[in-house]
Amino acid sequence: MREAFDELLACLGPSGCLIGPDVPEASRTDESRTGRTLPAALLRPADVDAVSQALAICHRHRLRVVPQGGMTGLAGGANALAGEVALSLARFHGVEAVDAQAATMCVRAGTVLAVAQEAAAEAGFVFPIDYGSRGSCQIGGLVATNGGGPRVIRYGTTRANVLGLEVVLADGTVLSHLGGQLKDNTGYDLKSLFVGSEGTLGVVTRAVFRLWPKPGETYTALCALPDARAATALLAAARSAVTLSAFEALWPAYYDIGCLLAKTRPFAATPAVCILIEAEQPLEALLETAFEDGLVEDALMARSYADARAFWAVREAAGLDDALPGLMNFDVSIELQAMPAFVDGLTAAIENVFPGTRSLFFGHMGDGNLHLILHRDEMDAPTAHALDELVYERVRGEGGSVSAEHGIGTLKREWLGFSRSPAEIRTMQAIKSALDPHEIMNPGKLLTSCQS
Amino acid sequence: MREAFDELLACLGPSGCLIGPDVPEASRTDESRTGRTLPAALLRPADVDAVSQALAICHRHRLRVVPQGGMTGLAGGANALAGEVALSLARFHGVEAVDAQAATMCVRAGTVLAVAQEAAAEAGFVFPIDYGSRGSCQIGGLVATNGGGPRVIRYGTTRANVLGLEVVLADGTVLSHLGGQLKDNTGYDLKSLFVGSEGTLGVVTRAVFRLWPKPGETYTALCALPDARAATALLAAARSAVTLSAFEALWPAYYDIGCLLAKTRPFAATPAVCILIEAEQPLEALLETAFEDGLVEDALMARSYADARAFWAVREAAGLDDALPGLMNFDVSIELQAMPAFVDGLTAAIENVFPGTRSLFFGHMGDGNLHLILHRDEMDAPTAHALDELVYERVRGEGGSVSAEHGIGTLKREWLGFSRSPAEIRTMQAIKSALDPHEIMNPGKLLTSCQS
Repeated sequence: MREAFDELLACLGPSGCLIGPDVPEASRTDESRTGRTLPAALLRPADVDAVSQALAICHRHRLRVVPQGGMTGLAGGANALAGEVALSLARFHGVEAVDAQAATMCVRAGTVLAVAQEAAAEAGFVFPIDYGSRGSCQIGGLVATNGGGPRVIRYGTTRANVLGLEVVLADGTVLSHLGGQLKDNTGYDLKSLFVGSEGTLGVVTRAVFRLWPKPGETYTALCALPDARAATALLAAARSAVTLSAFEALWPAYYDIGCLLAKTRPFAATPAVCILIEAEQPLEALLETAFEDGLVEDALMARSYADARAFWAVREAAGLDDALPGLMNFDVSIELQAMPAFVDGLTAAIENVFPGTRSLFFGHMGDGNLHLILHRDEMDAPTAHALDELVYERVRGEGGSVSAEHGIGTLKREWLGFSRSPAEIRTMQAIKSALDPHEIMNPGKLLTSCQS
Repeated sequence: MREAFDELLACLGPSGCLIGPDVPEASRTDESRTGRTLPAALLRPADVDAVSQALAICHRHRLRVVPQGGMTGLAGGANALAGEVALSLARFHGVEAVDAQAATMCVRAGTVLAVAQEAAAEAGFVFPIDYGSRGSCQIGGLVATNGGGPRVIRYGTTRANVLGLEVVLADGTVLSHLGGQLKDNTGYDLKSLFVGSEGTLGVVTRAVFRLWPKPGETYTALCALPDARAATALLAAARSAVTLSAFEALWPAYYDIGCLLAKTRPFAATPAVCILIEAEQPLEALLETAFEDGLVEDALMARSYADARAFWAVREAAGLDDALPGLMNFDVSIELQAMPAFVDGLTAAIENVFPGTRSLFFGHMGDGNLHLILHRDEMDAPTAHALDELVYERVRGEGGSVSAEHGIGTLKREWLGFSRSPAEIRTMQAIKSALDPHEIMNPGKLLTSCQS
């Protein structure tokens, strides 16, 4: 290892290779707060060439590499094990180019999402991806985890918006395909394979994103609904009436804590289901009809940007991690029609088996994406595992996805087989082995070791 | 081989396994009309299980398999070599389910595109993909080649619209992921890898497609423009004013032959560039401003469905293959800003080096996708190759794609390296070897043999 570190130091310089005690504490864990070990070193290459050289050195020495972005992931995918080195692209940042005519943008992996969003806005466009950690998450991590968020309903996932990608493979080979063509049928879609591969196939260095025209006006409303079935009906009605840019559902327990944290309470009485709608057309007519049809019991229109921000603040519930320490975070996909019964059934089952557990449901309902937060005053490991099993068994029963957005990392690896067949997992392992035969790229994340 | 055929016959029955003289002539060649050899057998499994069993037999016997759909491809990707067997899913057809609430549809591979489109329309939706061969191309081929067409500007490519996929691998393993979740971060995006893999990684059996709401009204206009630079400016203006569902460019030679074949001539004088716009909002205001700005010299609004059909008939130029026998078909992506100069420069170069060659340019300009048809009264193989080289060298010079829509097949295999780096091609070969180690799946298509 000493020899490898000497080579890395020579290659990256002292500011590009922090070893042992110099590795900052921030490299220990992502937002899942489950990282136990500080990486043996933190590599900070400042350009693509340096990434390539550093990986070639690691490859030769069989040094395992954990790519780290803004450390905002929730699945443990960026946490290192003993003897592994972390690789950060924080020094390789910035928007390289905005092509206004083609409506594309080339961004470096170390760029913070908010910076890319601002550059897109300055050029008169919308950057397609947005979520709560925009101020610290990095483009490389966003690509590696196929970031989602509330705008997927309007612009699609990260994968759908990456038109070109540059990745460095385990052995240092640079795969660069940054042309950004909308249509390109020259062989396998390598970029889609790397988007969402959680750093297990290579290190993302640059990406070309599709940009979207700015919507003329945005209309936001918060609605109180009699039940979740009404919400699915409202969604269908909204889809055919307006262009939705968000359709977020908040079940009662989540609404209450969201209000508490946001220090605002739009509806005094807690709705059975609260829906935040954002659209590019006025919502009055839609909601009037919905009211007459009994789908909506009450609705508040945002009359100002401040109103809209207040609605979103309830939905975002910033500070939840601190308010409910040790909470468990779930992020599943459930077929829309099955979602109301799924929430009711799961709430009852949790209360039955683990009384005293708080179940907070919310989610990007328009995408079939449900989030669940579980909290107990005392959450020991066996209980947490049993809760995982209870939730994921029900997701499997619905043919849903155990990870809609957050990825598998280490925390959901045990449950991957609930959404993917053995044949699919074997196929993923075959691809992993083909591209990273010595398993140096983020080993043990997403997949169990292929060598074991 | 006899033994393999006996097993295949026993497995698939006489109607599921046509051998030697029973193989229909239609299995010889796709629309590129370059197929020389009739397959040794045509396998016609009637369900997924039969596909799996048939491939397992072929795999055991190292029998090479060429998947065939509607034989409408233009790259030779479905043509067999001596001793290879073809596999058709024509007997496994039909729409399995339309989920109106989730706006998805599960379709079998042997389904003709037009059938899927009609089923979507009956359920109140638009099927996202459309192109000229809709009456005979099949869903399996559409998925395997990542079909494009004029609607990509509105709904995206096939890959962007496939939410779930079932594929049978070379050894008969069934990979089924038909949940159709919009958001699913449970590991590698295997489906995107198979979409566009041209039958080299497995056989597509079923796919779940995203459906789209029917647009309220469609507005169509045909415009005469002073030059191609005006067209790129008009495109930018149109994008911010309306929701485009087509933006098609016809250069003069193509316009003239399109009129001839369609037996209509909307503009008596041939425009320098003719643009067909289709949008979901009225076009009058946009075109009025464009007229004032000198971007448009004349414009015709479709006042009826018949008008719109006539405009499209000029664009589609049905019968072109017969009118210009032996024509060469190009399908490239070029950065929008570079497109006007690219067309002018290429036209001049062709006229200079190969006088007497007719160059017909048209394309899905909104996607940066340019089609070119070349025709000479006498087109011998060396001339055709020299023309290929001339065109693709210029595409390479622009950093474009040598295949935007049609795929690589055999006809563009030599030019793949003009759009993809050696590292990318090696990575594709590594994936191919991992999933099809004996190279029985459509060998020699897209990639040269990995074993050679």
